[in-house]
Amino acid sequence: MSQILLQCSYKGTRYGGFQVQPNAPTVQQALQDALEALFGARPPVTGCSRTDAGVHAQNYYCTTLLDRDFALDRLPQAINAHLPDDIAVRRAAAVAPDFHPRYMALGKRYVYRIWLHSARNVFWADTSHHVRGRLDPALFAALAGCFVGRRDFSSLQAAGSEVADTVRTIHRCEATLEDDMLTLSITGDGFLYKMVRILAGTLIEAASKGRGAGDIEALLAACNRRAAGPTAPARGLTLMQVYYPPGSTGIAEAEVDP
Amino acid sequence: MSQILLQCSYKGTRYGGFQVQPNAPTVQQALQDALEALFGARPPVTGCSRTDAGVHAQNYYCTTLLDRDFALDRLPQAINAHLPDDIAVRRAAAVAPDFHPRYMALGKRYVYRIWLHSARNVFWADTSHHVRGRLDPALFAALAGCFVGRRDFSSLQAAGSEVADTVRTIHRCEATLEDDMLTLSITGDGFLYKMVRILAGTLIEAASKGRGAGDIEALLAACNRRAAGPTAPARGLTLMQVYYPPGSTGIAEAEVDP
Repeated sequence: MSQILLQCSYKGTRYGGFQVQPNAPTVQQALQDALEALFGARPPVTGCSRTDAGVHAQNYYCTTLLDRDFALDRLPQAINAHLPDDIAVRRAAAVAPDFHPRYMALGKRYVYRIWLHSARNVFWADTSHHVRGRLDPALFAALAGCFVGRRDFSSLQAAGSEVADTVRTIHRCEATLEDDMLTLSITGDGFLYKMVRILAGTLIEAASKGRGAGDIEALLAACNRRAAGPTAPARGLTLMQVYYPPGSTGIAEAEVDP
Repeated sequence: MSQILLQCSYKGTRYGGFQVQPNAPTVQQALQDALEALFGARPPVTGCSRTDAGVHAQNYYCTTLLDRDFALDRLPQAINAHLPDDIAVRRAAAVAPDFHPRYMALGKRYVYRIWLHSARNVFWADTSHHVRGRLDPALFAALAGCFVGRRDFSSLQAAGSEVADTVRTIHRCEATLEDDMLTLSITGDGFLYKMVRILAGTLIEAASKGRGAGDIEALLAACNRRAAGPTAPARGLTLMQVYYPPGSTGIAEAEVDP
């Protein structure tokens, strides 16, 4: 048995998230179906993150076990032949038996896309959040920087979660505007439940209502979900990259230090 | 009666091109349906280009006639409410009665997107052409420059077309590579039938077979469609911008000199 790391992309629109659940198709299930079709047996698939329903991934990592030799460079296309068009395996790499895609992640990068034009975007309809109001993109970008640092982010954690340690480090939080698309890019060592979507929703509200850096500081200091803004829709969120220890994956871009 | 210019976007996947035809839904028909639903009567819609089935547009221009006052800043959203999700009116502007979106165009810019990764792209599946072979992107970019200039492009014109004057000026023809997406951007004063797709297909073939600038010169000099490469698929092509004389449209980005 060898453990294989799969680097995948998926468009999350049709899925109830990565992890198998009773009432919706999931990415994990589609991958297991494809592996079963290819190898005859249904292997376990372990993901790096649960990801909410409707969230996308440019680079998602999961492991599986193979009990026979298969050329790793041919494995992605062999699996892709059994996957729907909105999921793709980009690369496969052999990893150590004790590698775990979730517990060994040192950090992650997400983007949240916001479409600001009054007319809908016909190309990014499923992969961006359309905000028609009078959001100030320069203020949005300026306030994004307020979230950088090591601090208690419990104000940005969805109610119902019971994580004991709510301190995380945000390494970078930046926004760029290009052709009416405002893209928030955020890198951190870990994220609380729905934290990126709540952060995006908080920034959208703040930049639409002319709030200042002091307001962001105050809502973080409150350590209370009700102090933050609404949870922005899943469709705008894409997991861009997961970062692992050097030498652990054999995939260069997954080992860049965040 | 006032003539109105509509700046539109559409994802062409589901359509048989812009212009009404008997056997497939078209963008022109969808726009006329929407205007009829909004105003009660079916107005004429005149487009800037025929665009092939499956080709997309970031900025497409067409005119229509309105026989009553309607605030132009509210018109796009009013029309969009009656359009399918893959077509959007971005802006509306009043133009002179003799403005013609096709005959007054001074130039156009297209992009052709080529996805080079061995695994499919789940986000750009409908809007890029997947090339799995061993295409050299640096050679592709170098050879792209060979098409710049004023010359007879009849080698790049689809058979069956009967245009008398096949001389056109290509102002810019450049390719950039980002995350396995090779994007060809081409600006010119006009394009022959299927010219951009044949140009893209010719470059793909040349960059896959290690051809040189001399080969491009020779195939252009042949003035024979058979000297060029295959027609690249419609899905990779997007009309990005159309350029009109300064002051004619009231839409700044449509008046930048190509």
